[in-house]
Amino acid sequence: MTNLTNLSPAEFRRLVRTGDFTSPTSGYCPGYTQANLVIVPQRYAYDFLLLAQRNPRPCPVLEVSDAGSRGLTNFATDVDLANDFPKYRVYRGGELNEEVTSVERLWQDDFVSFLIGCSFSFEAELLAAGIEVRHITEGVNVPMYNTNLPLQGAGALHGNMVVSMRPIPASQVSKAVEVTAAMPRVHGAPIHVGNPASLGIKDLSHPDYGDSVTIKDGELPVFWPCGVTPQNAIMQSKLPLVITHAPGHMLITDVLNADLKGNG
Amino acid sequence: MTNLTNLSPAEFRRLVRTGDFTSPTSGYCPGYTQANLVIVPQRYAYDFLLLAQRNPRPCPVLEVSDAGSRGLTNFATDVDLANDFPKYRVYRGGELNEEVTSVERLWQDDFVSFLIGCSFSFEAELLAAGIEVRHITEGVNVPMYNTNLPLQGAGALHGNMVVSMRPIPASQVSKAVEVTAAMPRVHGAPIHVGNPASLGIKDLSHPDYGDSVTIKDGELPVFWPCGVTPQNAIMQSKLPLVITHAPGHMLITDVLNADLKGNG
Repeated sequence: MTNLTNLSPAEFRRLVRTGDFTSPTSGYCPGYTQANLVIVPQRYAYDFLLLAQRNPRPCPVLEVSDAGSRGLTNFATDVDLANDFPKYRVYRGGELNEEVTSVERLWQDDFVSFLIGCSFSFEAELLAAGIEVRHITEGVNVPMYNTNLPLQGAGALHGNMVVSMRPIPASQVSKAVEVTAAMPRVHGAPIHVGNPASLGIKDLSHPDYGDSVTIKDGELPVFWPCGVTPQNAIMQSKLPLVITHAPGHMLITDVLNADLKGNG
Repeated sequence: MTNLTNLSPAEFRRLVRTGDFTSPTSGYCPGYTQANLVIVPQRYAYDFLLLAQRNPRPCPVLEVSDAGSRGLTNFATDVDLANDFPKYRVYRGGELNEEVTSVERLWQDDFVSFLIGCSFSFEAELLAAGIEVRHITEGVNVPMYNTNLPLQGAGALHGNMVVSMRPIPASQVSKAVEVTAAMPRVHGAPIHVGNPASLGIKDLSHPDYGDSVTIKDGELPVFWPCGVTPQNAIMQSKLPLVITHAPGHMLITDVLNADLKGNG
């Protein structure tokens, strides 16, 4: 196989497209934005877009495809949304139906694809600012928790916010807020610092998704809005058909993380 | 009539609701955000929301009502969207059909109301920063121009960006950028400084909308994305029915301009 470390995003996507890369994308094409995916038939697209408009922190929409299109305009050219994620999940009636490396055979003329910002982008900036990201150090998935924070519902879609947690030394919390606040298109600043109980989180060592991480003396648990939130909301609505990326198996776009600073 | 200068936004809206105030809202309830309005039947709401998602600078959506609802959740309580703008314009097939002080009798169960951010908010901040706003000094409407900058279309909706222009002394341009960049929910930073020809604007003294203003020696014309943009796009699509506020006749919300800093 080609040496993967020096590939451009376009070269990487072509490798994914042909089925030659089917693994998690973390660490590939460093510096480039990776994105989450939600595909719904057009009749459900308004509620989803409205949910995102009303809850931009957990659901930062980067780009929305035209109905039926497998291409994008802003975040990547030479892209095939039906093949360029290494792995997809297909949900029918709210239940996981299959995990596949291509959704070409399932494609419908009324599919609308939502590309959603991901914390990978701000983690790169945290590291660049000299802030350790514990789950990266420990080689596990970020811990994520259901909260008692209700979303503003949209049509049939509603639910509570899901948050991701990163332990940060007290002396660096302010810096971590500053760095991530500058990136509103990928979740932005933390929504909470320090008191999991007030979010309804009972036990940090038992996350609802992902893995638990070490919290050292002198560190505070810092909570960011998480992209699992809109996926959960749409699953709970038990739509006949929803397609998402498989966790960790993202689209690598042509846009640098650095270019996500500010409001786009 | 009540002394209008000390009214709260809720008191002001009640006066509008009963038909006791039908004038432009500029200068009332200082410090509070005033908002534009676009109402469309629900079947057109997705294209409009997508147009806004793709063109957030000229079309910053503050809040979207639930279909059929005349209320809001975030920007005002005790609000009646069918009565609380002092004047409305009703467009049928893309043509202005009537101007009315209430749209209660026209209200449909499928109406979706879009509340859109307005440059009034950032002008207050410019003044607070010691930057003169020429059209306010001269007591006229802001000059606005059609440009050659195409929007990213959404379904049936497309068009070019409309910009507003404020002459700024060269020494204050940087400050004006800084102040407005901090308010992305009300158009944000200028999109262009200094060269109208490159936007396709032939003559600054003949604006396409609003009034011309004096440009003094040592001042540069500074151009911001303008809320007329989405109104134009939706008019051009000749929908059977669209309702907007009448120019200058805005909703006064419960939210302070100062609270629009950042990304909400």
